[in-house]
Amino acid sequence: MEFSKNNTNFAKSIMTTDTFVKQKAIRVKDDSGEYTIAGVAKGAGMIHPDMATMLCFITTDADIEKNYLKTALKRATDCAFNMITVDGDTSPSDTVIVIANGLAKNEIIKNGTGNGFQKALSELCIFLAKCIAKDGEGATKLVEVHIEGAAAIGDARLASRIVANSPLVKTAIHGNDPNWGRIIVAIGRSGAEIIENKVDLYLNGVCVMKQGKPIDFNKKSLSKNMADNKTTTIHVNLNIRNGSATAWGCDLSKEYVTINSAYTT
Amino acid sequence: MEFSKNNTNFAKSIMTTDTFVKQKAIRVKDDSGEYTIAGVAKGAGMIHPDMATMLCFITTDADIEKNYLKTALKRATDCAFNMITVDGDTSPSDTVIVIANGLAKNEIIKNGTGNGFQKALSELCIFLAKCIAKDGEGATKLVEVHIEGAAAIGDARLASRIVANSPLVKTAIHGNDPNWGRIIVAIGRSGAEIIENKVDLYLNGVCVMKQGKPIDFNKKSLSKNMADNKTTTIHVNLNIRNGSATAWGCDLSKEYVTINSAYTT
Repeated sequence: MEFSKNNTNFAKSIMTTDTFVKQKAIRVKDDSGEYTIAGVAKGAGMIHPDMATMLCFITTDADIEKNYLKTALKRATDCAFNMITVDGDTSPSDTVIVIANGLAKNEIIKNGTGNGFQKALSELCIFLAKCIAKDGEGATKLVEVHIEGAAAIGDARLASRIVANSPLVKTAIHGNDPNWGRIIVAIGRSGAEIIENKVDLYLNGVCVMKQGKPIDFNKKSLSKNMADNKTTTIHVNLNIRNGSATAWGCDLSKEYVTINSAYTT
Repeated sequence: MEFSKNNTNFAKSIMTTDTFVKQKAIRVKDDSGEYTIAGVAKGAGMIHPDMATMLCFITTDADIEKNYLKTALKRATDCAFNMITVDGDTSPSDTVIVIANGLAKNEIIKNGTGNGFQKALSELCIFLAKCIAKDGEGATKLVEVHIEGAAAIGDARLASRIVANSPLVKTAIHGNDPNWGRIIVAIGRSGAEIIENKVDLYLNGVCVMKQGKPIDFNKKSLSKNMADNKTTTIHVNLNIRNGSATAWGCDLSKEYVTINSAYTT
């Protein structure tokens, strides 16, 4: 489902360095009835957990209990807008708002009903969050960092965000360099619990480290693979317990420097 | 005092992306006698508190008690190598070593004697640390961030390091943009205690904010001033209590991206 032309123009009018409109609508059919959730977001630079600088407005015609809606938005934001980074910088103007008007006349959603709402809201927020990361100032690629097997979910969140925000990882990806060393070092400084000889690391699905030992992979071919894909995926299994999280970021290009050092009196 | 040519060649041999030799020797005359402290350092990228990636070797002919020397080095490192940043990334190979052989035959330095040792050692370390920040990969400028009036020294250290490491502050300085907003926002996200209407901010000595209010300054002239100087100084008085600290970093240029995204199989 697409926004109308007028809505797209509104979205364009609130963009600054954004290069494309970030919007999505999801039609949900669940045990409470049928309703729609739609969202539009803005943001490209000064992006870092938690959120800044971005705006996101979500509307739904679902009939939903206020506290349930609040909790659902917090959950969705935590695994979406709070897991993206462009440059590590933040600003005071972060906003994610959801408004529900109940016009869908579904059975009111609260704990135990409307089982599709949280799933759809999280999907919508993750979609918009990934759009922001992908549209990072000067970015040529979306970077997805998935950490699993962490000692706790907090460790997985921390490590994935540190990797996604590392200038050295970001520049390596910009240069299509399958530089697993920079990734491991970023995880190492994150503070997450690590058992060195347990770490498995995959780059765009290719295993480059198994149980802490570098695997002899074809660098040239993996570099070409990275060059050919608009998304670079970093997948790490710490093989400790079952904490997992995903963070999104982008590569660091000369264009980022150009955009942010341009100055005219 | 300069190192001999042979020493310079040794220093060159341990450099990677370093563009100049970082060395200094200080002759000290104090109540314990006369002695020399000399140091050489390496480092340009992957630099962030605390220290990484850098090496520094310091030698002295002073006769000095072991524990006193250890404490003195810790103090010097804390206000020097632990206060620099190039890109926020770290590595596992940080080293600062001091070796003393006692050949100067001064009266042994310990608590209460050798009043010149700590001062000279700190001066040496700060000099070498500034060299590393100035030689940051792709850097065209040294950035000095001095925070005073903080609620505690920890707040001043935190805030100064966050400002020095902010990509948006670094790109603004690269573009000679007297962008006080980015500096204030970086202080704001540092976690340091701030009372908004008490903050004074100076850029290259020019007051751009007084008691939290922007001052009407000549942007064109300050931008030219920034362009003409190889060091940009950011001086902030939080006017709360008397915590102070200085951090050093560098601007963020396209050359940093070029250096770190260059990849050949």
